[in-house]
Amino acid sequence: MSEPFNQMSLTRRSDAYWRVTFNHPPINLLDDNTVPELEHLLDLAEAEPKLKVIVFDSANPDFFIAHFSPAAGFKNLVTRKPNGHFPWTDIVDRLAHLPAVSVAAVRGRARGGGAEFALACDIRFASLERAIFAQIEVGTGLIPIGGAVDRLPDLMGRGRALEVILGCDDFDAALAERYGWINRAIPDQEFEAFVEQFARRVASFDSQSIREAKRLVTLHGSGPTPADYDESAATFYAKQPWPGTAARFPKLLELGSGQHSDLELNFGRRLGELWNES
Amino acid sequence: MSEPFNQMSLTRRSDAYWRVTFNHPPINLLDDNTVPELEHLLDLAEAEPKLKVIVFDSANPDFFIAHFSPAAGFKNLVTRKPNGHFPWTDIVDRLAHLPAVSVAAVRGRARGGGAEFALACDIRFASLERAIFAQIEVGTGLIPIGGAVDRLPDLMGRGRALEVILGCDDFDAALAERYGWINRAIPDQEFEAFVEQFARRVASFDSQSIREAKRLVTLHGSGPTPADYDESAATFYAKQPWPGTAARFPKLLELGSGQHSDLELNFGRRLGELWNES
Amino acid sequence: MSEPFNQMSLTRRSDAYWRVTFNHPPINLLDDNTVPELEHLLDLAEAEPKLKVIVFDSANPDFFIAHFSPAAGFKNLVTRKPNGHFPWTDIVDRLAHLPAVSVAAVRGRARGGGAEFALACDIRFASLERAIFAQIEVGTGLIPIGGAVDRLPDLMGRGRALEVILGCDDFDAALAERYGWINRAIPDQEFEAFVEQFARRVASFDSQSIREAKRLVTLHGSGPTPADYDESAATFYAKQPWPGTAARFPKLLELGSGQHSDLELNFGRRLGELWNES
Repeated sequence: MSEPFNQMSLTRRSDAYWRVTFNHPPINLLDDNTVPELEHLLDLAEAEPKLKVIVFDSANPDFFIAHFSPAAGFKNLVTRKPNGHFPWTDIVDRLAHLPAVSVAAVRGRARGGGAEFALACDIRFASLERAIFAQIEVGTGLIPIGGAVDRLPDLMGRGRALEVILGCDDFDAALAERYGWINRAIPDQEFEAFVEQFARRVASFDSQSIREAKRLVTLHGSGPTPADYDESAATFYAKQPWPGTAARFPKLLELGSGQHSDLELNFGRRLGELWNES
Repeated sequence: MSEPFNQMSLTRRSDAYWRVTFNHPPINLLDDNTVPELEHLLDLAEAEPKLKVIVFDSANPDFFIAHFSPAAGFKNLVTRKPNGHFPWTDIVDRLAHLPAVSVAAVRGRARGGGAEFALACDIRFASLERAIFAQIEVGTGLIPIGGAVDRLPDLMGRGRALEVILGCDDFDAALAERYGWINRAIPDQEFEAFVEQFARRVASFDSQSIREAKRLVTLHGSGPTPADYDESAATFYAKQPWPGTAARFPKLLELGSGQHSDLELNFGRRLGELWNES
Repeated sequence: MSEPFNQMSLTRRSDAYWRVTFNHPPINLLDDNTVPELEHLLDLAEAEPKLKVIVFDSANPDFFIAHFSPAAGFKNLVTRKPNGHFPWTDIVDRLAHLPAVSVAAVRGRARGGGAEFALACDIRFASLERAIFAQIEVGTGLIPIGGAVDRLPDLMGRGRALEVILGCDDFDAALAERYGWINRAIPDQEFEAFVEQFARRVASFDSQSIREAKRLVTLHGSGPTPADYDESAATFYAKQPWPGTAARFPKLLELGSGQHSDLELNFGRRLGELWNES
C-alpha cells in the first residue's frame, strides 16, 4: 500500500498542489504513530518533482493539532535516524528543505507539538476567530522541543518567545499575528478562499524560481540548525519522566487531557488555576 | 563633470543632509546604467565628512522604483568589482557601511529591484495611501537578488519572507508595516513633513555619535553578509535566461512590463491571473 | 547587612516570586552606585534555588528609570570584572542566564540606560498610557551601550533599530509594541493585575521546566554575546568625554537633565529643538 495514512489524508488537487488534512479523532493528537506517517508523506513529496505547494489543514474545526498524546509511548520519537538526528528534528529539517513550500492553514487549537508542527511549516495562516496557539509544555512539567525554543525567538524576538514558552497561555490569532508567530490572521469566512488562492497562485509560478528562492532563504545562516533541535530533544528525553512531569500528569489526565474536554478547549486559562505557587 | 546623473538628481539641502530623487521616466526603472550612477553617488557621499543623512525619494508619485528593466542588458551588473563582489552587492554593502544614515521615503510602487533598493537603505518610511511593495520576481520566472532573500527573513521572520517572495503579491504600506518590512506607514498628507523632520533632526545630532552607533548596529553579526548577496546573484546570473524566465517574459512585455501600464500599476494582482497551474 | 539597597527595594512575595522596585528620587537615575546594588541583587537571586520570577517596577509613576546620571562619575562602570567584562555587560549577561525569568513592568519613562535595563530583562510589559521608551544617547552626543545596539536589531530589525537609536525620539507604549521593542502594552488600569497574574502563573509552574526552557532559548545562537556588549562599552569609554558630548552637556544640564524637569518629561521632543544642523 503506497499511502498508509491513518491520522491524515492526502488529496492531490494537482501535481503541483497537495492538501494534507489531519483527521485523528477526537482532537487530532500527535503520537508515536504520527512519525512514520509524516515520514512517508515526505517520501512522497520529495519524489514528486512537479510539487510546488502543500497545505496542511484539519478536519476538526476545534483542533488543528491538540498536542502530543499524554498517554502514548514514544519509541519512534526517541529512535535516532541514520543521520543521527531525532525523528522530529529530521521531519522539521526535511520540511524546511523540501523544494515545495508548506503552508499551515490553522483553524482551531494548535498547542504543544501541534504549534511546533505549524512552526515547522514554511508559512502559517490562521482563522481570526477560530485559531488558538499555545506552548503549554512548561505549564505541564515538560519543555517544548521540536523547534519552539529555536524558532520562536527568530520569529518574535527573545522576549516574546520567553513569554509564550514560560507563560504557556493561549494566544488568539490576532495576538499571534501581532507577535509575528503567524503570517497573518484571516477572518474565518474568507479563510478557505484566501488559502486556496495563495496555494493556486504559487502553484502557477515557475518551479525553478520557487525552489531556488526557498533554498536561498533557508541557506541564510541566522536560523536554527538540526543540532539546535536535537539539543532540546536530548535535554527532554535524557531522563524520563522528569519529576515535575510525573507530579503533574495524573491531574491533567484526570481533568481530560487528550480528550474532547473543557481542559483541552481552554488549556491556557486552565493552566493558570491548577498549580500552587511554591 | 562631477555629477553626471541622468536617472536621479542630487540636492544638497545642507552639508549634513542630502536628497536623492529618482527621476527616470516613465516608471523609474532600474537598468544597467543605474549602477555607475549609484556608485558615483556613493563616491560623493563617502567623500563628504559632514554628511549625516541621505533621503531617497521619487519624482513620480506612482512609482518609487518600478523594478529592473525587463529589456535592458546587464553588462555592468555582472562585472565583478575589484573586491570580488557583484556591483549590486557592493552598492548594498557600501550603503550599509556609509557613515551617514540612508532613508528610503517611499511613495508609489517599489517592486523587485526597487523593493531591494529600499531594503538596502538603513530606514524605510512609506506613504500609507500611496506606497506598494512587492517582490514579483518568482512570479515572472526570476528570483530576487540584491538582498531580498537575505534581508527579509531578518526583518519579518522566515515565514513572512517566504510568503512575500513566493507569493509575489502587492503589499500596501499598512500590511508592510505589520510585517516589519518598513519602519512605518505615515498618512500621505503628513508624509513629507514627517520625513523632513526626521532628517533635520538626525542632521542636528553629533557626527561621531551617529557614525559609531550605526557602525555598532551594523557590526552585530546576525545580518546577511556580502557573500550572502553574491550567492543569490551568482545563482541567478550563472545561466541566463532561465527556461521559466524565457517562457514568461514575452507575455509580460506584451502586457506592458516596463511601461506605464495597467500591468505595472497592479502587478501583484495581475500575476495571479497570468499563468496556468502545472 | 545582607540587603544594602538604597536605590531599590526588594520584596519577597514568596520564595518563587520577587519584586524589585526602583526608588531613587527624583527621577530614578542610574549611577555608579547602582552597579553594586544590582550585583548584590543578582548574588541573592542566584543563591535562591526556589526563585522563578523577578518583576522590576518603579515607585515613581512618571519614571521607570530616567537614564544614567549626567553628573555622576563612572568608576565602577569602567572597572572590568575578573571575567574581563565591563560590569554592565556582566549584569546583562547574568540576568540572561539567571534560572529565574526577569520581567520589566514599565510605567513611566525608560530612556537611555533605563531603556537598556528593560532590554536586559527577559520580558517587557508596559503601561499603554504611561510608558515611554527612548534611546536618547546619540541626541546628547553619546552612544547607547549596555545592549541597545546589540539587542534592538534582534527585536525589531535593523531598520527600526537605527530609527530608534539615531532618531532618539520618544516612543509611546503602543508604538513600542508595534516595533517589537516590548512584549505588549496593557491599559494602565489593568496593568498591575496583568503583571501580577503573569508572575503568579509562572511561579506556579515547574522549576526544572522553566530553567531548561529559558536555557534553551538563550542557548540558541543568534543573539548578542558579552563580547558584543563589551565592544560598544569600550568604544564609548575609550576616550572620555567625546567632543560632541562635552559640547552638548552644559546645555542639557542647564535645561534640567537629571532633575524632575520639562526636559526630562519630554526628552524626545525637546531633543529635536536643541541643536543646529551643521
